[in-house]
Amino acid sequence: MRKPIEPPHYPCLEMGPRMLLGPGPSMVHPRVLQAMAGPVIGHLDPAFLQVMDRIQDMLRYVFQTQNPLTIPVSGTGSAAMEAAVANSVEPGHPVLVCVGGFFGGRLAEMARRYGGDVQTLECPWGEVIDPQQVRKALENRPAKVVAIVHGETSSGVQQPLEGLAQLVHDQGGMLLVDCVASLGGVPLSVDELDIDICYSGSQKCLSVPPGLGPITLGPRAEQVLRDRPAPVPNWYLDLSMVQKYWGAERTYHHTAPISANFGLYEGLRMLCEEGLEASWARHQRNAEMLWAGVEALGLALHVAGEHRLPSLTTVRVPQGVDEMTVRRRLLQEFNLEIAGGLGELKGKVWRIGLMGHSSRTENVKLLLAALEEILRSERP
Amino acid sequence: MRKPIEPPHYPCLEMGPRMLLGPGPSMVHPRVLQAMAGPVIGHLDPAFLQVMDRIQDMLRYVFQTQNPLTIPVSGTGSAAMEAAVANSVEPGHPVLVCVGGFFGGRLAEMARRYGGDVQTLECPWGEVIDPQQVRKALENRPAKVVAIVHGETSSGVQQPLEGLAQLVHDQGGMLLVDCVASLGGVPLSVDELDIDICYSGSQKCLSVPPGLGPITLGPRAEQVLRDRPAPVPNWYLDLSMVQKYWGAERTYHHTAPISANFGLYEGLRMLCEEGLEASWARHQRNAEMLWAGVEALGLALHVAGEHRLPSLTTVRVPQGVDEMTVRRRLLQEFNLEIAGGLGELKGKVWRIGLMGHSSRTENVKLLLAALEEILRSERP
Repeated sequence: MRKPIEPPHYPCLEMGPRMLLGPGPSMVHPRVLQAMAGPVIGHLDPAFLQVMDRIQDMLRYVFQTQNPLTIPVSGTGSAAMEAAVANSVEPGHPVLVCVGGFFGGRLAEMARRYGGDVQTLECPWGEVIDPQQVRKALENRPAKVVAIVHGETSSGVQQPLEGLAQLVHDQGGMLLVDCVASLGGVPLSVDELDIDICYSGSQKCLSVPPGLGPITLGPRAEQVLRDRPAPVPNWYLDLSMVQKYWGAERTYHHTAPISANFGLYEGLRMLCEEGLEASWARHQRNAEMLWAGVEALGLALHVAGEHRLPSLTTVRVPQGVDEMTVRRRLLQEFNLEIAGGLGELKGKVWRIGLMGHSSRTENVKLLLAALEEILRSERP
Repeated sequence: MRKPIEPPHYPCLEMGPRMLLGPGPSMVHPRVLQAMAGPVIGHLDPAFLQVMDRIQDMLRYVFQTQNPLTIPVSGTGSAAMEAAVANSVEPGHPVLVCVGGFFGGRLAEMARRYGGDVQTLECPWGEVIDPQQVRKALENRPAKVVAIVHGETSSGVQQPLEGLAQLVHDQGGMLLVDCVASLGGVPLSVDELDIDICYSGSQKCLSVPPGLGPITLGPRAEQVLRDRPAPVPNWYLDLSMVQKYWGAERTYHHTAPISANFGLYEGLRMLCEEGLEASWARHQRNAEMLWAGVEALGLALHVAGEHRLPSLTTVRVPQGVDEMTVRRRLLQEFNLEIAGGLGELKGKVWRIGLMGHSSRTENVKLLLAALEEILRSERP
């Protein structure tokens, strides 16, 4: 008989709030936190089924879609990305992935894991993909799925989507769009743009804690899912089954994260109260204030004005400044979090998020004041 | 231009607490709910990294293991089940799955999705698998992975595990154990039993809201993972990557569900305070009180005394009683949730859970009183 392992004894959590101005999670409104602290009820309780229905309805508003299959996946935005890929890509199918940053690269990797014959269309991190390049690529090799990132949090780019769906549909494929960093904060209409598969994460512009990944599938994507010759190779994210749990059948699949969905409910309710247009305008307004302020400090923005993502700004680290020191001082002296670069922009940019409840004028002012003070002593 | 979709306006959540005596989620202590309502911080914040380390440490205590790779998967117990399967089963590998209920069946289905050559060893729902049957099955056909459910919530059976690992290891395979419904409430020591892969869910005996799936992999399973010729076909649940996020490298993989982990932290802290032995004894004591009370009402227990699972009891629905009516009345008149049967026991049993914070003497008393009152009028 082994000696039993003794229990460790740790103190209770004592974490003050941080000002979160990184690429997510964004700050969460007390109303949302309060909703999550409500008592847990059963996942097939009639009261919870009503919550599920209303969440779906509010998500349809936020995605601007009539798609019946619109749900929060029971995982983070990355799980929603995988759900999008797993339910649309079949082994051997040609897939075109537009890569202008880290998350485009992740999409390509996932499509490969699901057996897709993946071709990538790349642009420098900080620029956009020209729809004409997509057209040419599809002329050379048609694709069943074309995947692209709307708001690339690694580069700070907002990818234009107009006209893409037409190109993709004309050659018989589906358009898959990542709007993890844009949904709710940047103008987007799934139905207007005729997007077939679109997903996001709860912790960005929706301002709900991480843990849920909203996703919507249009009629083409639902058809492809129905016609699959083999089951989706991912059980947890198999939307043909998840759909029956969220739909009228209520067939048990997994236990929905109750408290997380309470939080999402309240976060979506707040967004419905504010209205999408007002939220988009607020994100744009605060981003412009940040951009002007950053340039006034003599710093350069990484992305050209017309392609900047309002929810996430990349700022070039000036010569001679240690970017990590600046971030550490922001956290220690101002209790304020921003992020460093990812992938090929590591060490070269800071990433400043103004998402959801974090996108407020007072936050921009404090960040600019803090940056000014720190750079005064850190610049050579 | 389409007409924009207008926002729906729903009321704020107004849900009173329910007494949850079903197969999970179980009731959540206010301390845990309060921890989840704390402000969200960044997922790479030094303060959060400390929380991650401590959660892992407390999970090792609860699993009674020294395994370094011990983490909460960012999904529900079903995601942890899929992580266990996806990271151990390789295409073409012989897999033996012991099936004595719904969740054994799910394990078999998942193993098939990952390309395993699955053989099942079945027993009636309500009985246990004899290790000698496993030995014989492995003599006929060795298996790389042998999967079994410790606490089967569909049948109410506690499967003995003693001696199984030896049988499995002797022929060169790994033992995978589902302890979703037992971890924290029923005696289990992963290291003592030499289990290679073991997983659970947050919402059962750990009494934390659903959304996280604790899992632990021993040295054999880690080795198999390292030696895989191809990447794990599931990106989100690829533990070779998740491990680097939870381990010393802190390599970004996905954004951990911050608030859910705060809840798990506090729930584990409460279990560490109570102590595993005390928790096991409490679950056993309250279950025995339930069993005696149910039999005193003239109802039959589905599982023989020596194999009953303390955390989940199956009670046979008496002849002439509509089981759904009884459950509806329990919910409407007593605000009390129990569950019906699943799969082949649908309509034949009720499932009563006494898990975590739900396992309290006063809950047993109320349930018995409520059942007595309702059966008085429902019995023919």
